[in-house]
Amino acid sequence: MSNTAAYAAPAAKAPLAPYRIERRAPGAHEVQIDIKYCGVCHSDIHQVRDEWGGSVFPMVPGHEIVGVVSQVGSQVGKWKLGDVVGVGCFVDSCRHCEACKEGEEQFCAEGMSATYNGYERKPGGGLDTTRPTYGGYSTRITVDENYVLRIPANMPLERAAPLLCAGITTYSPLRHFGVKAGDRIAVVGLGGLGHMAVKIAKAMGAHVTVLSHSAGKREDALRLGADDFLVTGDETVFKQHAGRFDFILDTISAQHDYNAYLGLLRRDGTMVLVGVPDPTPVHAFSLIGGRKRLAGSLIGGIRETQEMLDFCAAHDVAADIELIPIQQINAAYERMLKGDVRYRFVIDIASLDQAAA
Amino acid sequence: MSNTAAYAAPAAKAPLAPYRIERRAPGAHEVQIDIKYCGVCHSDIHQVRDEWGGSVFPMVPGHEIVGVVSQVGSQVGKWKLGDVVGVGCFVDSCRHCEACKEGEEQFCAEGMSATYNGYERKPGGGLDTTRPTYGGYSTRITVDENYVLRIPANMPLERAAPLLCAGITTYSPLRHFGVKAGDRIAVVGLGGLGHMAVKIAKAMGAHVTVLSHSAGKREDALRLGADDFLVTGDETVFKQHAGRFDFILDTISAQHDYNAYLGLLRRDGTMVLVGVPDPTPVHAFSLIGGRKRLAGSLIGGIRETQEMLDFCAAHDVAADIELIPIQQINAAYERMLKGDVRYRFVIDIASLDQAAA
Repeated sequence: MSNTAAYAAPAAKAPLAPYRIERRAPGAHEVQIDIKYCGVCHSDIHQVRDEWGGSVFPMVPGHEIVGVVSQVGSQVGKWKLGDVVGVGCFVDSCRHCEACKEGEEQFCAEGMSATYNGYERKPGGGLDTTRPTYGGYSTRITVDENYVLRIPANMPLERAAPLLCAGITTYSPLRHFGVKAGDRIAVVGLGGLGHMAVKIAKAMGAHVTVLSHSAGKREDALRLGADDFLVTGDETVFKQHAGRFDFILDTISAQHDYNAYLGLLRRDGTMVLVGVPDPTPVHAFSLIGGRKRLAGSLIGGIRETQEMLDFCAAHDVAADIELIPIQQINAAYERMLKGDVRYRFVIDIASLDQAAA
Repeated sequence: MSNTAAYAAPAAKAPLAPYRIERRAPGAHEVQIDIKYCGVCHSDIHQVRDEWGGSVFPMVPGHEIVGVVSQVGSQVGKWKLGDVVGVGCFVDSCRHCEACKEGEEQFCAEGMSATYNGYERKPGGGLDTTRPTYGGYSTRITVDENYVLRIPANMPLERAAPLLCAGITTYSPLRHFGVKAGDRIAVVGLGGLGHMAVKIAKAMGAHVTVLSHSAGKREDALRLGADDFLVTGDETVFKQHAGRFDFILDTISAQHDYNAYLGLLRRDGTMVLVGVPDPTPVHAFSLIGGRKRLAGSLIGGIRETQEMLDFCAAHDVAADIELIPIQQINAAYERMLKGDVRYRFVIDIASLDQAAA
């Protein structure tokens, strides 16, 4: 029997079920991590259901991993037994392309090794399509020491897990596009990504407005730290607040009218997409009238992810979560699709250990 | 009879015909300009045909104006009789909003006074909708001295006229988005705007590639200074050259697939739209995968337009034109719609003087 308990999707759209995978003993530069918690990302659902194409099954999802180092390879210098660590959206990259050398491994020219639904690398370079990667819906994982993050000492572990994807996905564009104290920013959508964006942007000193389709999340938004809340179901909002924001972080995955939101930007403002709706019409005038920018952002590199974790620790920022046993994962997906989670499900991996015992 | 000969469109889609307009005597801070040449911009056609909505008729188009100062108001300090000057896309703005104070009058919060199909301002502020503006398809124009440009001494006047719109429309985004010597840039479309973009980007020291739908303009592109030429009708181009460009200036007004062109940008690259096609679907992945930016740019302010004219003079850059008498304007529009002009029609306003005589 393979050495590690997991939950896997056997095929596109099939429910996840118990599964066993083989985790290798750590190589010289690798560590093994006993997984304690794994966040549940909306992209888990997209990939389990093969909505982006190219999914590989059986699939063990999960890329918001927090755990404890339980074995270290002979040459490992960064980690020791018992260290509390994280693994995010990728576990390896080529290390020699321009992006990797600049610490932007998420844009690796050869393709990063995604933590799941990806491939390990060949010793000589490139992806080894005979060796799929398996993610954090499992009891342990073996990872190169350079692709492991340190979880700061004062962080509640289960609330730290979502930082590894939702945290860095929102921190990175806020930093990269230069959001600073006093900037008027808008966060579109208050889900797993949006609620982290509010907390992080507030910690950066920005004036944060949440834009949400309905009024239902107003109190939550203000509790999370937002300074203002606008209901976009009321279309007069787009006229009343035209030109108001320096920066908009758009976290919505359902299709919506980019042009309406671009109208809320000031001249030279930037709207960054981190969600992936179906292709959406953009009117050139929406950009030309105000020299505006519509951009995208993809997670972040290892160095920036560590910076984000340290920033969150320093500012007492962590995710709002609902902890579940892994046996509830399929029901959790259904609830996520209805927006019924505030704001991230996190799997208590102890539930998997116990079931496998 | 009104004091100035012109050509006007009497109604949307009607042919242009001789018309007379009244030009006011210069106020204290105004100059009167005897117009020598006026470039024919694609936006003249859009507005004459009311394709953007809100056109005001009768319409005297033309915002690429070059002429000679023939009267000066009592308080004018900048200009004297006989100065060779230009007027671009606007003749006034509010002068006190943030954009105006920063010299970005094209983004005036109250709305600039477009050179034609716009409105003069009220003394107390705001646009006076009883006083439409009339453009450069006329023998003279009266303009506030602060909205007049100096044409450098060594420029051929008829080839300078298109710089007032096509020149600044391409110069401004190249400057604003930081194109510098050695950058690999692409110019999409080789028309009035595109041919100026090639010349200006080359003068900035960039490595310039023209992307054109068919091979017909290859020789021209290279003669204009392009380093390379790619035929986008061959779709393999988009795979072969993926990630190649630091910056793309997209001058096309016909609908085309932004996503394909975004794929040609390197990580963190920017594509700027200066043409206005119908709304075009953008796939979030096109931006997210590479943290790319799709932006827009609108002409330029007075200060930057003067900078552009001086830059062009210093680098011996001017438009390639076909000089026409104004009596050919309707035929010229038809030829422009077929792409049959290399690369800008310019009206010899002497033809209007003579006809009116």
